[in-house]
Amino acid sequence: MIEVWGFKPRLQTCEIGIRMTSTSAQPVRLSQRWQWASRQAIGFLMAQAVDNPQVLSLAAGLVDPQSLPIAETREALEHLFADPVRARHALQYGTTAGSGRLRHQVIEHFAGLEGSTVSALGLRPEQLVLTTGSQQLLSLVGEILVDPGDIVLVAAPTYFAYLGTLEGLGARIVPIETDADGMRLESLERVLTELDRQGELSRVRFVYSVSYYENPSGISLSAERRKGLVDLARRWSRAHRIFVLEDAAYRELRYDGPELPSLWSCDPSRQHVIYAQTFSKSFSPGVRVGCGILPDELVRAVCDRKGNEDFGSSNFSQHLLTEVFDRGLYRPHVSLVQQACRAKRDTMLAAAQRHFGDLPVVTWVRPHGGLYVWMSLPKEVATGFDSRLFQVAVKEEQVMYVPGELCYAGPPEGRRRNEMRLSFGVQDATGLEEGMRRLANAVRRVLE
Amino acid sequence: MIEVWGFKPRLQTCEIGIRMTSTSAQPVRLSQRWQWASRQAIGFLMAQAVDNPQVLSLAAGLVDPQSLPIAETREALEHLFADPVRARHALQYGTTAGSGRLRHQVIEHFAGLEGSTVSALGLRPEQLVLTTGSQQLLSLVGEILVDPGDIVLVAAPTYFAYLGTLEGLGARIVPIETDADGMRLESLERVLTELDRQGELSRVRFVYSVSYYENPSGISLSAERRKGLVDLARRWSRAHRIFVLEDAAYRELRYDGPELPSLWSCDPSRQHVIYAQTFSKSFSPGVRVGCGILPDELVRAVCDRKGNEDFGSSNFSQHLLTEVFDRGLYRPHVSLVQQACRAKRDTMLAAAQRHFGDLPVVTWVRPHGGLYVWMSLPKEVATGFDSRLFQVAVKEEQVMYVPGELCYAGPPEGRRRNEMRLSFGVQDATGLEEGMRRLANAVRRVLE
Repeated sequence: MIEVWGFKPRLQTCEIGIRMTSTSAQPVRLSQRWQWASRQAIGFLMAQAVDNPQVLSLAAGLVDPQSLPIAETREALEHLFADPVRARHALQYGTTAGSGRLRHQVIEHFAGLEGSTVSALGLRPEQLVLTTGSQQLLSLVGEILVDPGDIVLVAAPTYFAYLGTLEGLGARIVPIETDADGMRLESLERVLTELDRQGELSRVRFVYSVSYYENPSGISLSAERRKGLVDLARRWSRAHRIFVLEDAAYRELRYDGPELPSLWSCDPSRQHVIYAQTFSKSFSPGVRVGCGILPDELVRAVCDRKGNEDFGSSNFSQHLLTEVFDRGLYRPHVSLVQQACRAKRDTMLAAAQRHFGDLPVVTWVRPHGGLYVWMSLPKEVATGFDSRLFQVAVKEEQVMYVPGELCYAGPPEGRRRNEMRLSFGVQDATGLEEGMRRLANAVRRVLE
Repeated sequence: MIEVWGFKPRLQTCEIGIRMTSTSAQPVRLSQRWQWASRQAIGFLMAQAVDNPQVLSLAAGLVDPQSLPIAETREALEHLFADPVRARHALQYGTTAGSGRLRHQVIEHFAGLEGSTVSALGLRPEQLVLTTGSQQLLSLVGEILVDPGDIVLVAAPTYFAYLGTLEGLGARIVPIETDADGMRLESLERVLTELDRQGELSRVRFVYSVSYYENPSGISLSAERRKGLVDLARRWSRAHRIFVLEDAAYRELRYDGPELPSLWSCDPSRQHVIYAQTFSKSFSPGVRVGCGILPDELVRAVCDRKGNEDFGSSNFSQHLLTEVFDRGLYRPHVSLVQQACRAKRDTMLAAAQRHFGDLPVVTWVRPHGGLYVWMSLPKEVATGFDSRLFQVAVKEEQVMYVPGELCYAGPPEGRRRNEMRLSFGVQDATGLEEGMRRLANAVRRVLE
C-alpha cells in the first residue's frame, strides 16, 4: 500500500480558529490553502538566522556574493539608459509572458545549452514564459495542474521549498527512492503500478525532478535514466497526460563530470516535459528572472494564472537581462561563477575530509555542480530542528545547516533523519573551513 | 434573493476535456482553478491589440510614457552602483516580505500621505509586505482569505482584472450598487442582511474597494461613506472578521478635488482594513513594486503564501526604489506625473465635449484623478466585444476601448452594457483628440 500523504493530515482548522482569537476583534478565518501552506521550514530557518546573527550559516541557499555581476549589470544599465526608447520600454508595463526580446534570447541560449539551434529544435519564443525566479514557474505549473488530492511524484530527497509549494496546493506527494544515479526508475514504476492498482493513477499529475545536481543531494539523474524517466511518464499516460517537471536550476553551475542531456531533450514529442530554468544561480538572484519552456497546451494556462497573480514579473529586470545578453556579458560571467563555485566546493570537500575524515560512519556526496554537499551521519544522530545536534550546532558551536529530513516528502516516520544539506554558496573559503570545523565539533559532541 | 455568482456557473470541465484532446498525445487535465481563471477579458483585449496594431488604443491601462522616470532611475542606479556593498545586496536574494529598508521608507511615505507620522500612527515596517505590483498583493489576500464558494462584495462597476483573480479562486462575487459618491452603503447593508437571512454571512470574506478614482468609473468613495463602510464591516463581523480590502492604486494620481482620508485611517482598530498601494502609477510600472499594509494576523499568512509562489519579488527593483526615495526623487516625480496626467485628462474631457457634446444621451464622469473617463451611451448602444459598436470602432474607425460590462461582477443580465472605460494614460494629446474623434464617429454610425 503506497501511502500518499500531505493532503488530509495537514488540516488544522481548529488550531487556527483558536490561535486567531487572541485579539479583541473577531477571529480571522483563513483559507484552506493557507492552512496547507502554513508550515514552511524555511520560515523557521530564517527566524533562527535572525535570532542568532552570530551563527555561521551553511544553510542559506544564497549564491556566492563575491561573483555577483556588479560590473556586468552596470554596463548593461548604461547601455539601456543610453537609448531613451529602450529605457522607456523598461519602465513601462510589460506583458504577462514577459519581454518578447528576452524570450527570444533565452530560447537561443537554451538551444545553445542543448548543443543545437532554435530552428533545429523547432522552438518558438511563444513556448517560453518569463517568471519571478523559476520558483514562480514551478508554483504556476502546480496551480494549473494540481487539484487538492492530486498526486505528484518526487525524488527522496528533493528541493524542500517546492515540497511546501505542493503542500500548499493540497497535493499528495509520493517520494521515490534514489541512489547515486538519482531517482530509481524501478521504484517509480512500482509506485505507479501500485497507484494504478489502487485506482489512483488518474490523480497522478507529474514527476518533479531537479535534473542537475539535485538540491539537496548534489546527485544528477544519470544519462540512461533520463530517457527512461520520460518514457515512463509517456507509457503511464493513459486517460490523461502525466508530465515531467524538469527543474534545471543548477544546470549551468557545472564544475566537472559529464555534460548531461536535459530531460526535455529526451522527449522529442515535446508534450511531456516542462522545463524550468533560472538566472538566479548563473547570474543574479536579485533580478529574479526565471523561465519555463512548456508544451503548447500549457502556455496559455500558465499565462492565465500568472495574469491573475501579478500580470507580469519585473519588466525592468527583463530589459536589464536583455542588455546583458546583447552585450555578450552572460556567458563569460557564467564561467566566472563556475570557477568561483568550483573552488568553494573543493574547499568544502577538503574541509569535510579534514574535520570528518576520521569519523567512519560519516559520508558525503562529491557533487559535480550546484551549491550543496549532502552529508550523512551515523543513523543514531538525528539532525532535525528538535535534535540535540541542531541545538548544539546553533546555540553552542554557532553554525547552521539544513536538516535533511525537511527534504523528504511523505510521513515523518519514513524520512531519513541523519542527513544535512551544507551549502558552499554564501561563505567564503575561511567561512567554509570554520563552518565545517564547528559542525564537526558539534557532531563529535553529540557522538560522545 | 441575492444571486451570488461566479462559482458554479463557470465550471466547464467537459469543454476543457474536449478542447484539450486536439493533439495526438493524451489529453491534458487542467486544475479546477485554471478553469475558473481561464476567461480573462484582458487576454482578448491584448489579442485584439496585437491583431490590429494600427488601432489607436483608449483601452490600455498603461501610464503616460512621456513622464516615465528615466532621469530619476538613471540617477538612482548610479548611486546604487557607486557603493559595491549596496550593489551586491541588490543583486543577491532578498527576503519574501521584501527589503527592510524599502519597507521602512514606504511606511514613512504612507504616514506622510496620511498627514501624520509613523510613530503617531503606531505603524511598524513589519506590517508592510512588498509585492510584484499591488496586483500580487490583491491576489495573495484572495489566496489566504477565500475558499471556493466564499463571498466577496465589490462595487458595480469595479476593477475588472481583480474580478478575474477572484473568479480564479472560485469566489462568489456580489456587486453592490454605486452612485456619484461610490458604493451605496444602504445597498451594501441590504445585501449583508439578505446574505445573513440566507445563512451565508459566514461566507463573506471582504469588501473590495478601489478607494480613489475607481478604475473604471473615476469615482471616489465620499468622505462620509468611508467611515460608514468600515463601520459596516466591523458591525457585520460576528463569528468571524469581515475585512475591507482598500485598493489605493490611484491615490497619488490626484489632479483636483478634495483630499480624501483612506479607508485605512477610518479603522483605528487596525484590524479590518487591508491597504494596497503601488508604485506602478506614480513612478514606474516596469519596476513592478507594490505593497500592502496588513492587520498583524495577516502578515505571516501573506508571506507564507508568497513564499510558496516566488519567495520574494525583484530585490533589484526594491533597491532601485530605495535609492529613489533616498535621493528625494520620488515626490518631485509624482508632481510631474500629476501635472502631465491632469493635462491629459483635460484634453480627453475637452475632446469628449467637442465630439460627443451634441449627443444628448451620452454622459461621462469628470474624474478628479486616476487614468480613466467613464462614458455612458444611450441604453440601446451595447459596447461589448460582440457588439456592433466594438466591431465598428476596432475594425473601421480603428479605435479601442474597454467595454464597461467587463467591469461588473454578477450574471451578465444584471450588467449595464452601454458603458466604456476610456484611458487617457497612454496616448498623447494628439492621440487623445484623434481617438475621441474616431470613437464619436463609431458611436454616430451605430446610432444612425
